[in-house]
Amino acid sequence: MAPSRSTDLRFMEKAVELANRAVGDTSPNPPVGCVLVKDDRIVAEGWHKRAGEAHAEVDALAKLETPSKGCTAYVTLEPCSISGRTGPCSQALIDADVERVVVGVLDPNPKVNGNGIAALRNAGIKVETGVLESECRQLIAAFTTWITLGRPLVTLKIASSLDGRIATESGHSQWVTGESARMRVHQMRDQMDAILVGAQTVRADNPSLTARLGDGPSRHPVRIILSNSLNLPTHSKIFDKQAPTLVFTTNNEPTELERDGVEVIRIEGGDSGVSMAAMLQILGKRQLTSLLVEGGQNVATALLKQELVDRICCFVSPKVIGGDGIGWAGPLAFRTMDEVITLSHLEICQLGDDLCIEGNCVYGNS
Amino acid sequence: MAPSRSTDLRFMEKAVELANRAVGDTSPNPPVGCVLVKDDRIVAEGWHKRAGEAHAEVDALAKLETPSKGCTAYVTLEPCSISGRTGPCSQALIDADVERVVVGVLDPNPKVNGNGIAALRNAGIKVETGVLESECRQLIAAFTTWITLGRPLVTLKIASSLDGRIATESGHSQWVTGESARMRVHQMRDQMDAILVGAQTVRADNPSLTARLGDGPSRHPVRIILSNSLNLPTHSKIFDKQAPTLVFTTNNEPTELERDGVEVIRIEGGDSGVSMAAMLQILGKRQLTSLLVEGGQNVATALLKQELVDRICCFVSPKVIGGDGIGWAGPLAFRTMDEVITLSHLEICQLGDDLCIEGNCVYGNS
Repeated sequence: MAPSRSTDLRFMEKAVELANRAVGDTSPNPPVGCVLVKDDRIVAEGWHKRAGEAHAEVDALAKLETPSKGCTAYVTLEPCSISGRTGPCSQALIDADVERVVVGVLDPNPKVNGNGIAALRNAGIKVETGVLESECRQLIAAFTTWITLGRPLVTLKIASSLDGRIATESGHSQWVTGESARMRVHQMRDQMDAILVGAQTVRADNPSLTARLGDGPSRHPVRIILSNSLNLPTHSKIFDKQAPTLVFTTNNEPTELERDGVEVIRIEGGDSGVSMAAMLQILGKRQLTSLLVEGGQNVATALLKQELVDRICCFVSPKVIGGDGIGWAGPLAFRTMDEVITLSHLEICQLGDDLCIEGNCVYGNS
Repeated sequence: MAPSRSTDLRFMEKAVELANRAVGDTSPNPPVGCVLVKDDRIVAEGWHKRAGEAHAEVDALAKLETPSKGCTAYVTLEPCSISGRTGPCSQALIDADVERVVVGVLDPNPKVNGNGIAALRNAGIKVETGVLESECRQLIAAFTTWITLGRPLVTLKIASSLDGRIATESGHSQWVTGESARMRVHQMRDQMDAILVGAQTVRADNPSLTARLGDGPSRHPVRIILSNSLNLPTHSKIFDKQAPTLVFTTNNEPTELERDGVEVIRIEGGDSGVSMAAMLQILGKRQLTSLLVEGGQNVATALLKQELVDRICCFVSPKVIGGDGIGWAGPLAFRTMDEVITLSHLEICQLGDDLCIEGNCVYGNS
C-alpha cells in the first residue's frame, strides 16, 4: 500500500529541512536533501554539503545501517542522470534497489530535466513528483536562474524609510533600519555567492560587505564593485582580502588597484557605465549563482530598468526622511500603474520596529 | 473584598468595546463606555452616542433594572465634574449610591482633570484609575488634542508604493493599493470629523471623499480643500453637497464657488499658501476634533515641516514606481538620521497584498 499524501509531505518536509542546512554552501550546485524511509520510519538522512562532495542521495545511502532494498527515497530535487564530479544519483538509487522515489521538483538543468526520473522508472522503480513542489523550487531558485539563464539570481536588498529613502540629502544613512534588520542582512550575505555595490557606496559608506554572524567563521561572498572612474580608495575595507573582490569597469586606464592585487575586469559600457547584462554573464561563467545587490541608487536603477532584478528584499523602517533624501530607485519611466513592477510570492516579517517585505519581481506592461 | 485586577480588566475591556461603537459620532465629545457591575455580573451597559445626548454613565444608569446602590461602575473616561449640555456624571454616580468607580483615563479637559474623581472620593466612593489606560487614552486621542491644543488631531493617510511613491510621473495613481486597503480608508473616513486635500488632488483625482461603507448611510466628514488659485472645477465631486465642504484660500478675489453656495474661508498665508496652523485653529473652533489628510505631496509636506502631523497611516503596496514617480513627502531638510521623523506606538497589519503601517509622529532633533 502506498503511503498517504500526508506521510509523503511529512518526510519531504524533513528532506527540505536537511537541504536548508547547506544553502549558500553548495554553489554552483543547488542544496538538496534526502531521507530514506522504511516501514514508515526514517532510516537515513543525507544532504549535499558542497560541490564535489556526495550528492544528497549518495550521502543518505552511505549512512544507512540497514539494507537499502525496499526503501523509499524522498529527494527535494530530481536525482541526476549525468556523471559530474560524482556518479549519477539515479543509478545509485537503482543499484540500491529502492522501491519508490518521491521527488520535490524536476531538475531545471536541461541535461537532466526528467531524464533522472525516466531512468528510475525504466528500472521499475515507482516515482512520484511534485511533493512540496513550491518549497523545493524555492530551494533551487538560484541554481535554476544560473543553469537556465547563465547568470546569478539577482536579489536587490534595500534599507528604506517609510517614504522610500535610503539616506538623507547629505548621504547620511546610519542607521535607517534597526539592529535586527541589519543582523538579517548578514544572514542573507552568508547565503549568497556574491554581493554587488556601486563605487559611490564604497566611497560614502566604506562597507566591508562580509557576513558577520557572530557564531564562528562565515563564508564570505565574493564582493563586486562597479566603478567607471576607478576612483576607489585602496584602503577601503572592501579591499581587506577577507573575501575575493572584483572591480568591473569600462575604464581602460591602468590602476593602482591592480598593483595591489585586486582583480579589475574591463568590459563594454551600457546605458550608464558597465553593462549589467555583460557583468552578470561573467559572474555566471565564474559559477556565481546568487548575487545580492546592496546599493546604491544608480546600480539598483540600472538593473531594474533592464528587468535584471529577480527578487527585492526591502527592509522598511517606520521613519520619514523626506523628498530631499536619496530614493532607492531612480527614474524608471513608467507612465501608468499597469507598467510598474509588482512583487509576487510575498514574504513579510517584522524585525524589531522594521518590516521586511520580500518577493519576486513581476515586470509590468511597459 | 475588592475584585481582582483581572476582573477589573475584563469589565473595562467591555466598557472600551462599548465606547468603540460610537467612535466618530460623538464629536466634539470623546467616545466613552460604561458598564455597571454587581456581584461580579454586568447589570447595565451604556455609551455616549452623540454630543447633547446622555453620557455613558447616565446611559448605563438609565438602563439599570436593579437598584444602583452598591454597584461598581467601569468608565473608560473620568466622569465629568461640570455641567455641559447634560449634568455632571460624577454627581449622577454619587446620587446612584455606587460603591466603587473604576476609571480608564483622566479627563484631559483642564476644567475636569481629576475633579470628577475628587468629587467621587469626597462622597466616600472608592475610585481606582488607570485600568486599561493606554487603550482608554487611545479612544480619546482626538478629543485630547482638540481640548488641549484647540485643533484637530491630524492623521496623514498615504497610499504608497514600496519606494515611497503615490503616483507615476504623469500623476497616474489608480490604483497603488488594493481593494482591502481602499475599503479601510472608507472606515477611517467614517471615524473622522474632517478630511483635507489640496486643490491639485481635487483637479487630478476628482475624489468625492465620502465614507462609503456599503452598510447603510454613513456620516460623511466635512471636506476641506486648500486652494490659493481657487481654480477648482465647480462640477468636482467634492462640491456634490453630500457633505459640507470648506475651501481655505489666501486669495481675496471673489469666486463663483461662493455663488454656488460653497463656503470659502480667506485666511493669512504661510510658507507656501494657506497657513496650516491658522487653518487648524479655525477647524478646532468649529469643533472638528479629527482631521484625515489625504493628499497630496504639498499639503503633507507643509504639515510635516511644521510638525503638525500627529499620526501617519501608510498603506504600502508591494510595487516599485521609480524615482520619477511622485513621492509622498517633499523636502524636509533633515541632514542626519537623528533629525528624521520616527513613528512610535506602531500598529501594523496586512490588507490583501498591502501593509498598513500606522503610528504616532515623533519629531527628531532638527
